[in-house]
Amino acid sequence: MHFSVTILGSGSALPTSRRNPTSQYIECNGRHVLIDCGEGTQVQIRKNGIKLQRIEHILISHLHGDHYFGLVGLLSSMHLLGRIKSINIYGPEGLKEIVELQLHYGGSRLAYELIFNVLDAKDNGLVFEDDVLAIKHFPLAHKIPTIGYLIQEKPRERNLRTEIAMADGVKIEYFHRLKKGEDVVNEDGNLISFEKYTKAPKNPRSYAFCSDTKYFEPIIPFIKNVSTLYHEATFTEAFMDRAIATMHSTAIQAATIAKKANAKKLLLGHLSARYDGGEEHESEAKTVFEECEVVEDGVKYFI
Amino acid sequence: MHFSVTILGSGSALPTSRRNPTSQYIECNGRHVLIDCGEGTQVQIRKNGIKLQRIEHILISHLHGDHYFGLVGLLSSMHLLGRIKSINIYGPEGLKEIVELQLHYGGSRLAYELIFNVLDAKDNGLVFEDDVLAIKHFPLAHKIPTIGYLIQEKPRERNLRTEIAMADGVKIEYFHRLKKGEDVVNEDGNLISFEKYTKAPKNPRSYAFCSDTKYFEPIIPFIKNVSTLYHEATFTEAFMDRAIATMHSTAIQAATIAKKANAKKLLLGHLSARYDGGEEHESEAKTVFEECEVVEDGVKYFI
Repeated sequence: MHFSVTILGSGSALPTSRRNPTSQYIECNGRHVLIDCGEGTQVQIRKNGIKLQRIEHILISHLHGDHYFGLVGLLSSMHLLGRIKSINIYGPEGLKEIVELQLHYGGSRLAYELIFNVLDAKDNGLVFEDDVLAIKHFPLAHKIPTIGYLIQEKPRERNLRTEIAMADGVKIEYFHRLKKGEDVVNEDGNLISFEKYTKAPKNPRSYAFCSDTKYFEPIIPFIKNVSTLYHEATFTEAFMDRAIATMHSTAIQAATIAKKANAKKLLLGHLSARYDGGEEHESEAKTVFEECEVVEDGVKYFI
Repeated sequence: MHFSVTILGSGSALPTSRRNPTSQYIECNGRHVLIDCGEGTQVQIRKNGIKLQRIEHILISHLHGDHYFGLVGLLSSMHLLGRIKSINIYGPEGLKEIVELQLHYGGSRLAYELIFNVLDAKDNGLVFEDDVLAIKHFPLAHKIPTIGYLIQEKPRERNLRTEIAMADGVKIEYFHRLKKGEDVVNEDGNLISFEKYTKAPKNPRSYAFCSDTKYFEPIIPFIKNVSTLYHEATFTEAFMDRAIATMHSTAIQAATIAKKANAKKLLLGHLSARYDGGEEHESEAKTVFEECEVVEDGVKYFI
């Protein structure tokens, strides 16, 4: 079962030659989700060999340009490349108005449906759910209404203890129910226990996206025990005054959130253009939370 | 005296790894003009070593995304990089509304003034004029209102025939008036003829930008005798049906316009993503107009 995030852009407001503005591509057990869509995202998608038309859900965090200026171009390219399948777009109020105004003046009629879903950036709740994953949203604290996202795998089937089951002559037709955690009574009236013939699956994995935000402890309940936390770390400690003024976080603040939320792993991004490699971010964050890494554009991280 | 165009993007609706969406940077005798601003233009500007803040005028041809989706990001970056000098933006109706809506939802207040100038895409006229250049606009024929632009140098001073003037003992203080084409009467009452001591300057140079448009002869009077004509050539002859359906031009149509307008040189661009190098465009166009070239991103062409 596959769960990964590919970083398409890890920079902040000013793009650099190393870091594009924010965008991430999530693959989760056959589902394809884009989070944010900064300028140039469609080119990044192609460079990274991602199949554009597979994307079914686009989550936008907020309406600062470095998080969505690539959206209308992406939607236009999907149309030009023959898309007919509808797409779901989630984000704060205003996004629909902006996209529709641009399509209006462009005289554009897309051959597929845009399904806009306005989320209340001050609230939390379910964004989308199917049998494979759930997407939830929660409020971040930034200069304008900003939304954090959590993508959770649904609990997986139990793992069959195949050798024991075969040795005891359990019929293959019962395997499906046993893996779902159901006991079975066979034709002879004997109980076949799912606990005997299966093992508990691994805990469902989860991925949280928190950008942009100042240090904001109220997010912790929403991301508690997350497998991988992506948290913005625009600045290092030396620029704490800038972090405060712009309502962004430092690497140590991101690490503190990861620690308090009991995250398993922390990914740091949204680095200010004044930095290049992010070594300083990483070393500062590690003083608080060891399992952390500054992300790079074009790298896929497995959850 | 410097007059050049740097191609920042020579592709069409779908960007490719070789061709970005449309944008061009014009330097004309100390003036700095951007024409169109497709997605990714700000990155192209930096890659080409162009000083962002020098740009004083931005001309937008029409509101198809591949010609302006990079504009708001560019304006934001100018702000973040400390711009306080106002900027002039010219384009069709709708542009101001789109830019202002995006700034509104981004909670952005730029530290410099955006001076929007709405041009009537069905009319022609003067866009801007100073002592160095004049910018004019005229209508193109595309699916939505689309504007062509002409940038003309102002006539230059006459060239002094320094050796003859020195030999005849013409005083240096008269040179300035002679170069302006004025005769001078010296202190002895003798006429000093500007025609004797100066040569006519080269004809003023001009650059015309025609994209996007179908084959449209009514533009010819506006670009007559232009030094360099940039004309879109989205397709080769094999795709004439697509050119007609999408109101674009073929390379041969662009060359025909260049010939009929008596242009000195033709630059071809806005190639469909189905092409790579543009060799076919060039060879087809040359059957009609020899002095032509398919442009490449990142190349500077001298007018």
